[in-house]
Amino acid sequence: MTWLDLPAGTGFGIGNLPYGVFSTAGSAPRTGVAIGELVLDLVAATGDQVHATGSLNAFMARGPRAWADLRAQLTDWFTDAAHRATVEPHLVPRSEVTLHLPVEVADYVDFYSSQHHAENLGRMFRPDSAPLTPNWKHLPIGYHGRAGTVQVSGTPVVRPSGQRKGPTDAAPTFGPSQRLDIEAEVGFVVGTPSELGRAVPLAAFPEHVFGVCLVNDWSARDLQAWEYVPLGPFLGKSFLTSVSPWVVPLAALEAARVPAPARDVPLLPYLDDADEPWGLDLTLEVRLGGELVSCPPFGQLYWTPAQQLAHTTVNGASLRTGDLYASGTVSGPERDQRGSFIELSWGGEDPLTLADGSTRTFLQDGDEVTISATAPGPDGTRIALGEVTGRIEPTP
Amino acid sequence: MTWLDLPAGTGFGIGNLPYGVFSTAGSAPRTGVAIGELVLDLVAATGDQVHATGSLNAFMARGPRAWADLRAQLTDWFTDAAHRATVEPHLVPRSEVTLHLPVEVADYVDFYSSQHHAENLGRMFRPDSAPLTPNWKHLPIGYHGRAGTVQVSGTPVVRPSGQRKGPTDAAPTFGPSQRLDIEAEVGFVVGTPSELGRAVPLAAFPEHVFGVCLVNDWSARDLQAWEYVPLGPFLGKSFLTSVSPWVVPLAALEAARVPAPARDVPLLPYLDDADEPWGLDLTLEVRLGGELVSCPPFGQLYWTPAQQLAHTTVNGASLRTGDLYASGTVSGPERDQRGSFIELSWGGEDPLTLADGSTRTFLQDGDEVTISATAPGPDGTRIALGEVTGRIEPTP
Repeated sequence: MTWLDLPAGTGFGIGNLPYGVFSTAGSAPRTGVAIGELVLDLVAATGDQVHATGSLNAFMARGPRAWADLRAQLTDWFTDAAHRATVEPHLVPRSEVTLHLPVEVADYVDFYSSQHHAENLGRMFRPDSAPLTPNWKHLPIGYHGRAGTVQVSGTPVVRPSGQRKGPTDAAPTFGPSQRLDIEAEVGFVVGTPSELGRAVPLAAFPEHVFGVCLVNDWSARDLQAWEYVPLGPFLGKSFLTSVSPWVVPLAALEAARVPAPARDVPLLPYLDDADEPWGLDLTLEVRLGGELVSCPPFGQLYWTPAQQLAHTTVNGASLRTGDLYASGTVSGPERDQRGSFIELSWGGEDPLTLADGSTRTFLQDGDEVTISATAPGPDGTRIALGEVTGRIEPTP
Repeated sequence: MTWLDLPAGTGFGIGNLPYGVFSTAGSAPRTGVAIGELVLDLVAATGDQVHATGSLNAFMARGPRAWADLRAQLTDWFTDAAHRATVEPHLVPRSEVTLHLPVEVADYVDFYSSQHHAENLGRMFRPDSAPLTPNWKHLPIGYHGRAGTVQVSGTPVVRPSGQRKGPTDAAPTFGPSQRLDIEAEVGFVVGTPSELGRAVPLAAFPEHVFGVCLVNDWSARDLQAWEYVPLGPFLGKSFLTSVSPWVVPLAALEAARVPAPARDVPLLPYLDDADEPWGLDLTLEVRLGGELVSCPPFGQLYWTPAQQLAHTTVNGASLRTGDLYASGTVSGPERDQRGSFIELSWGGEDPLTLADGSTRTFLQDGDEVTISATAPGPDGTRIALGEVTGRIEPTP
């Protein structure tokens, strides 16, 4: 299929072709495409300066026709050996590049669309109420996060300080978070903007969403628990959100599409996805210090990214190029499918036992967490979403 | 004091000198300074292309020394008649200019810092609980809003649609909001960024905050009430936030500083403002169709903008040039000091009677709401913050 000598079983085959922003020693950040263990320099290969801007935004803003055209050209280059002589000089080993934040993030929205996660958190945060709030099955609950602290994979995670108050404390105290956690999520990047005052219908999802990345929405559970009533999470989440450096085009995930789960209550028309199922059969893997601790399944999330987009705009809110929205923590029904340590350790009450016999509830200084994911690709191949990683540093 | 022939009692005297972005017919948006009924074209007057960028961001990013230097120069130009011949050619009547969004908004945060407002809303939204949540007097509650739908005064307010569910409804219904409302707020614009992982202390407020504007955080109360538990407001707020076009430098508000109110519970050290009181004696005026309906007093808000900034960053979240944060609805103890219609009409149960004998609960199509404000200026003058206005248009 390709004249490139790709590693067997690579997740970065010609069915993937994800976009990222890279630099080599002494050069400015520019757009590249990952293929096997290499990166194609798009500025050099295409001569198009849209790829020299240091983020994907300018290219994404050109819209779905331009995305399809470039993808077709890349596929042609990598499959027809006649292009080898012109393309090969612009390939750089991935081991030699530095990867940067791929997108200049406009607005960042975080959803809450895994029923297992929402029920688990509901049981822990609101033990006296039903696990799901009455609205949960009627709309994809979401909130805006801090776009300015979205950073690329590898950015150090400085343990945040803040107020926390235990149920029996007389007053809040201040200090480093003692319940630092991850949230393993999938993110969707908007390319095509929309007009203020006009809803984007569910069917227009692939015209607006450019691609998919992985998100770790680092969370300080003690800060969050004290602050979040009544207006939602703020400092418990805003210190850092990490994203994977490669944005997988939506077009690469055609083979990963699966029906959405059965819904328990009727959907209002703007959320009815019977004709536009956008379940995506991604399997996440969460590793702590290299050890696999969870495999959250994305495919059966209650709300799909197409529904999330339709909901975000149904009030007339406009989209901008670079908007990022994330699924919310992905958790499956089994313990080893939970996408956060608060769930894996049940609020710290049931610590996780690691391979070396040690136990873990929340994150310790020096811990490194890596989230990766794969999905079915064309012809029985797998598509890799790359990985998002971060290491906990002590509060300064 | 000035060689300019300013209108008597102008709020745009030489003690104010607010910055905005304006254009005249056929010209590109550029930075100007309001003085009386005129605008000084800063590109023409200074020759500095930082003012030709179409937003204040590039100038704001230069930091507080540059802000002070330009303000001193402007004051000199307008007070020393020797500059008249060189300055006067660059003055444009305000009646001839179009005003634009002054700031490219990075992150938008909305606080909830008026005790009267929080208590009023608590009584209406959570009638079975204490009006203030237990955290309210320990930290300035805030949440992130949608930066992409922050627009300049005058932008039409398209009535949003969404889900709403009355307490006795079996299921939510979809349609145009029936409880469209305003929130009269004061906004603070960040000029100087900060480093990820480092808190900005309360005392550094004037080094980071460039200036002040007015904010109308349009709110759909029916959408908000149904969606906001547990992660806070989303579609009930994200359709539009309007800001006034003139950003008043913090330096213009020295005479408006007042002590903060007495606090009922001890402040944690990072919020202790005994040495840095940043109460600001602004008086807002809310007009419906030109008729004054409320005069919310800003000066006695429980949490000051300096505390809000310190809180936002205490977990290590970084600031960017263009970050905008708003006070939350300003409401005083009296009915005619409430900054929203849900408060003025007590949830619609006690309609407001207007001068023509008609009554009003929430906003109707065609309604125009204007918020303006003034503050004490130097030498007994008043500083005007200008106004933020918007007219309700029907759902398309």
